[in-house]
Amino acid sequence: MKKHNFNAGPSILPRIAIENTAKAILDLNNSGLSILEISHRSKDFQAIIDEAVALFKEILNIPEGYHVLFLGGGASMQFCMVPYNLMSKKVAYLETGVWAKKAIKEAKLFGEVAIIGSSADKNFSYIPKDYKIPEDADYFHFTSNNTIYGTEIHEDPISPVPMVCDMSSDILSRPIDVSKYAIIYGGAQKNAGPAGVTFVIIREDVLGKVERVIPSMLNYKTHIDGGSMFNTPPCLPIFAMKETLKWVKEMGGVAKMREINHEKANMLYEAIDNSRMFVGTAEKSSRSVMNVCFVMKEQYKDKEADFISFAQSKGMIGLKGHRSVGGFRASVYNALPKESVLALIDVIKEYEKLNA
Amino acid sequence: MKKHNFNAGPSILPRIAIENTAKAILDLNNSGLSILEISHRSKDFQAIIDEAVALFKEILNIPEGYHVLFLGGGASMQFCMVPYNLMSKKVAYLETGVWAKKAIKEAKLFGEVAIIGSSADKNFSYIPKDYKIPEDADYFHFTSNNTIYGTEIHEDPISPVPMVCDMSSDILSRPIDVSKYAIIYGGAQKNAGPAGVTFVIIREDVLGKVERVIPSMLNYKTHIDGGSMFNTPPCLPIFAMKETLKWVKEMGGVAKMREINHEKANMLYEAIDNSRMFVGTAEKSSRSVMNVCFVMKEQYKDKEADFISFAQSKGMIGLKGHRSVGGFRASVYNALPKESVLALIDVIKEYEKLNA
Repeated sequence: MKKHNFNAGPSILPRIAIENTAKAILDLNNSGLSILEISHRSKDFQAIIDEAVALFKEILNIPEGYHVLFLGGGASMQFCMVPYNLMSKKVAYLETGVWAKKAIKEAKLFGEVAIIGSSADKNFSYIPKDYKIPEDADYFHFTSNNTIYGTEIHEDPISPVPMVCDMSSDILSRPIDVSKYAIIYGGAQKNAGPAGVTFVIIREDVLGKVERVIPSMLNYKTHIDGGSMFNTPPCLPIFAMKETLKWVKEMGGVAKMREINHEKANMLYEAIDNSRMFVGTAEKSSRSVMNVCFVMKEQYKDKEADFISFAQSKGMIGLKGHRSVGGFRASVYNALPKESVLALIDVIKEYEKLNA
Repeated sequence: MKKHNFNAGPSILPRIAIENTAKAILDLNNSGLSILEISHRSKDFQAIIDEAVALFKEILNIPEGYHVLFLGGGASMQFCMVPYNLMSKKVAYLETGVWAKKAIKEAKLFGEVAIIGSSADKNFSYIPKDYKIPEDADYFHFTSNNTIYGTEIHEDPISPVPMVCDMSSDILSRPIDVSKYAIIYGGAQKNAGPAGVTFVIIREDVLGKVERVIPSMLNYKTHIDGGSMFNTPPCLPIFAMKETLKWVKEMGGVAKMREINHEKANMLYEAIDNSRMFVGTAEKSSRSVMNVCFVMKEQYKDKEADFISFAQSKGMIGLKGHRSVGGFRASVYNALPKESVLALIDVIKEYEKLNA
């Protein structure tokens, strides 16, 4: 049976990226060696990481003055690396969900954190508006897409201080204006590639302003100077990311991705809005284009587990919502084909016909 | 032409581990999904990481009270995590090469570091003996195998204070007495698997003794509590490591590995010792069983580049020595077959016949 992969992350990747990665594991470029057993200092691997950096820069139209780093440790490591490198005294954070709260928790270890907006009052079902970024903050940090709650900040904010963004779950899904940001970071394991590599887009001039001593591996400067190879990088995840980036470019880049992603998300939101049994959890203007969160209406609440089983029987994977929201979450990342969204809409309609 | 992979790391892996990894990338357990696109919270991935931990514990005979963690970031991240978590005031380090020096550099950011033994006087060509570990040190740290210089500490030292070891390049090559150590860590990319995952074997009772605040991702307790899944782990590298560990077990475990590794290294050292053109760089009693370092004798020094080309023409990969030592380095890790060592010995003999 055809599987429809709605996993929230690690999540569906382009089939061509998967196949090319499997090939490179068996034999990289007819070298007789696996990508898993070549030196990261070899010409072959240098070409791979160079291509990945170049594709990232090209696809996101990254201006001069920015570096693209590929690190291990996950976006969670960035939660402490950002304040380690950038916070002198006071910083501003937007609190839009669990991941923002985790970032705030780590920042508090380094100084004063002003939470300038929060949607905690309504279980993070909307994006706070009318927040004011203090001009004396060392930086302003936000999470552009909140995977768990299905909310997203669709436009680049304007900030009077250096702006830092965790774009783990919507990078490469739409065009962004990188020049508005000091740092954009994220785990690759949604639109960018498999788990095990973290991207950091960083404007070098924000560094060198703090007085604290920074361990080498936590210092962005180390990784800029080393071209992401101060130490052995996560070679295979970088290779698979490079293949995913190639696919994004070939598909028409991030403008085309946005078009397709909006089409997919809109179809699904429309089916939910028109249904008798289901209801979306996020405020409409804050809805994520990546993660569509929905639940059963009150009178059908007891059917949620049954719907998951029904959907599973039709090949739907990863539809269970996060425990903080309950219900369902359909992640419709770049690599998820429209066909899978249509199949899910059919499943929703069929289930309603049988049960409501 | 058959390739003989003498890379120092990332390095040769068992062919069966490579093939099984490629298979899991195309389709994991006939699930219709790639290992690259399943959730780390899925039953399938939990089974993979559980098996990897169980194999690590079984193969190394790890006693009760120890945890096995699989993290991102590389062994270089451990250089700061160890003092972050364990150093209150003073620690003791053995200085046996570049990697030990890097570990020392990071530890110095946290307090007083006593370098209790060093072989810097002879370009790290031997392992210091008769060093004394101070009883007031919070821990004693050493590097068991020095990849660059081809030296190795063959027996577990005895320490009056908690002992911490970077075993990146000889873990799983021989039996060790884990109970003598507080922490053993290393990058996987030699005997344990591909690049992108770092193992940490840790005795929980050494934690909780420092007063400093530790960011979550740098705190071993976080990863113990999260079963290495506080955040998304490097899933594919962990899978490939699990396949490598299965192979080690099937081959007869670490006792058998030691036997085969000694046979391979001894053959190669003997060929070098008996040659007219080549000479080993490490003191005999300190010789590494993993990395065989050698150079041309003084009168043949100008032939070194030519020998590399000659060896390459016979399918030999990764023989160039590190720039700190020069000459040649043949890494003969677990997965390197005896056949490759015999082929290298033939190349050495053939080159001598033609040139000396």
